[in-house]
Amino acid sequence: MQAGRPIPVNPARMLAELDELRTIGAVGKGVSRLAFSGADIAARIWLAGRMRAAGLEAVVDPWGNLFGLPPGEGPCLLIGSHSDTQPLGGWLDGIYGVACGLEIARAAREAGGPRIAVVSFQDEEGRFGGLTGSAVWAGAMEPEEADRLSDAEGITLAEARQRAQEIADIGEVSPAQFAAYLEPHIEQGPVLDRAGETLGVVEAIAGVRSLTLTFSGEANHAGTTPMHLRRDAVRGLYNFAAALDTAFAPLVTDRTVWTLGRIAVDPNAPSIVPGTASVSVQIRDPETARLDRLMAEAMGVAEHTALALELDLSVSQGFSADPVPMDPRMTEALAEAAGGIAPGRWRRMSSGALHDATHVSRVLPTAMLFVPSIGGISHNPDEDTKRADLEIGLLALTEAIPHLP
Amino acid sequence: MQAGRPIPVNPARMLAELDELRTIGAVGKGVSRLAFSGADIAARIWLAGRMRAAGLEAVVDPWGNLFGLPPGEGPCLLIGSHSDTQPLGGWLDGIYGVACGLEIARAAREAGGPRIAVVSFQDEEGRFGGLTGSAVWAGAMEPEEADRLSDAEGITLAEARQRAQEIADIGEVSPAQFAAYLEPHIEQGPVLDRAGETLGVVEAIAGVRSLTLTFSGEANHAGTTPMHLRRDAVRGLYNFAAALDTAFAPLVTDRTVWTLGRIAVDPNAPSIVPGTASVSVQIRDPETARLDRLMAEAMGVAEHTALALELDLSVSQGFSADPVPMDPRMTEALAEAAGGIAPGRWRRMSSGALHDATHVSRVLPTAMLFVPSIGGISHNPDEDTKRADLEIGLLALTEAIPHLP
Repeated sequence: MQAGRPIPVNPARMLAELDELRTIGAVGKGVSRLAFSGADIAARIWLAGRMRAAGLEAVVDPWGNLFGLPPGEGPCLLIGSHSDTQPLGGWLDGIYGVACGLEIARAAREAGGPRIAVVSFQDEEGRFGGLTGSAVWAGAMEPEEADRLSDAEGITLAEARQRAQEIADIGEVSPAQFAAYLEPHIEQGPVLDRAGETLGVVEAIAGVRSLTLTFSGEANHAGTTPMHLRRDAVRGLYNFAAALDTAFAPLVTDRTVWTLGRIAVDPNAPSIVPGTASVSVQIRDPETARLDRLMAEAMGVAEHTALALELDLSVSQGFSADPVPMDPRMTEALAEAAGGIAPGRWRRMSSGALHDATHVSRVLPTAMLFVPSIGGISHNPDEDTKRADLEIGLLALTEAIPHLP
Repeated sequence: MQAGRPIPVNPARMLAELDELRTIGAVGKGVSRLAFSGADIAARIWLAGRMRAAGLEAVVDPWGNLFGLPPGEGPCLLIGSHSDTQPLGGWLDGIYGVACGLEIARAAREAGGPRIAVVSFQDEEGRFGGLTGSAVWAGAMEPEEADRLSDAEGITLAEARQRAQEIADIGEVSPAQFAAYLEPHIEQGPVLDRAGETLGVVEAIAGVRSLTLTFSGEANHAGTTPMHLRRDAVRGLYNFAAALDTAFAPLVTDRTVWTLGRIAVDPNAPSIVPGTASVSVQIRDPETARLDRLMAEAMGVAEHTALALELDLSVSQGFSADPVPMDPRMTEALAEAAGGIAPGRWRRMSSGALHDATHVSRVLPTAMLFVPSIGGISHNPDEDTKRADLEIGLLALTEAIPHLP
């Protein structure tokens, strides 16, 4: 194939494969393919067969990450995502990226080049840990640590991953075999759909800071304790939450989100002044400096609130991840392609969710392209994307590829 | 005895009886005498014996309410409260009023008059319903309805009250046999203790209005859903709570209390924008008009909050009770006595908790006198009152009695 010309993919063939894949582990309109479950293994065996049929070598690493490798030498582009799902997920989360990679790698083989590899990482959805396969592959997690992870039933990853050999021949695949990583994915949020747009070029994966604040006062009879003698933990919680919104307003951008998702009150009875109230605070932003500033602000607001209401405050740190910028050259190539194929119907954005790209970016130039999620729905059997948008995503990738590393 | 002179009570004798009573159902420093439990029956049998020894007729009604009736004809003063406890309560809640009544009735017998009766109502603490014995006795609850009440194990009051006959001879005791009802009680709140005061003359038992508000939005991924596209139910909850404090500030008095005691969030996970959040709102005030005004205000704030955040709002009504004013003539007699025996160390106040007086006030002129609860602690083994304050409460009652109906 002539260099610089888009790979002549067959979008209908990719859609047909997505339709077939959703039957593996189907539950109603949704899909259940937890990492290393029977359905997950079946889907990976099916993918390995398609890889071989496309002239790729199917290799699974000891962690269940399945690669389709083109013949020949030298680092090549790797395209993919994951094929495991939430306990009850949708038909596109993860597998869309794998299907794009498979179609592009196959079409490239048919066209005589370039060399393209495809991957389905394992346990992205967290039966054991979340992003586990890509984390170990990219050196973000020690293998011993990963092996100790266990699922809700107490089965360890060390036990579960013995099934990897059912998928394909086991081999070691090194990041050094690739030049760059490209992860197409559904947005899993409402931004593109609400705006009537088709493509999102990801500039960064947002970082996360999280903590749990516990306000402690004194549980008292709600009838006999006058307001001025109360140390009401729930009052601490809602004064903090309202003050946080006010304090954050001048500091945030439209890419910042913060969530008070989990609340626990004790004793939690209508007739008792609450003695303790805890609330999770999760902040996401694509810039590390802003994340740190917002965390400091949240702590300040919490301390001020506790002091003002004579409450005790305890803080426990939760999950934290730094923002991950995407490779600028790859991002520009995707932006160019998006502007060409969907003029006025694409945007630069950050990813609020984590993806395998988070870890792979440690070892390879990495970029992501989003297609819309109808209604922003994901991790749900109702998850969907217009078939035309799935096709446009594929075509945009092929437009960008000649300009990638 | 000469009319108008205080009954010569023996405070030490009353304290000795309280000490003995706390051994019946003792659990550590606390007491467990759930209505119609073995310990409750034993305490009532013990009380019936003391009544007889004092020359009173011990009569238990079919609901377990135990009366000690003086010989003679015509309506007389009734003094008492209850001797059942919380599952693990303190040594004074309820029984202090019964012990006062017993000592005063006995001392009056010894002094040759006046005629005084004593009562221990049943199930005040709600193994079955709460205030159940006084509610049925005063006609506030239909017997059939009371009989259907059941405890946490499914035992009905109809079954449990078969044990009433173990306590004493069963008889019918009519409110018409009494001229007035006087209920001494520990405050169960911190007001007197914090102020260093000894006596509280209750002007009214606060009424209660309660409801549960549920804000419903849309559960979404906390990373991928921008702030402006969220319908965050927890944001509804805390905006409501903060606005409620502001709206109530100009409407309340220092006798008004409001409590957001119970919160439930769904799905209640740090990484998910909350889809629903419910909160209990309980308002207490001694004036019906203010209670109604505050409830209307709370509804208005909730509706405004839901509208502003595009949330749905549902409301379920909870427990409601109108305020109960105490008899003015009795209250004045208690105030006069309190001012005489504890000058500068008493106050007029309202009762934030409900008491048997709530129901008895329907059929008899009724008043209450409070003694302090150390630290405001009640419904807890640490519940306590200085012995000197228990004595002063008893003496104040005797000072007031000549001036009661």
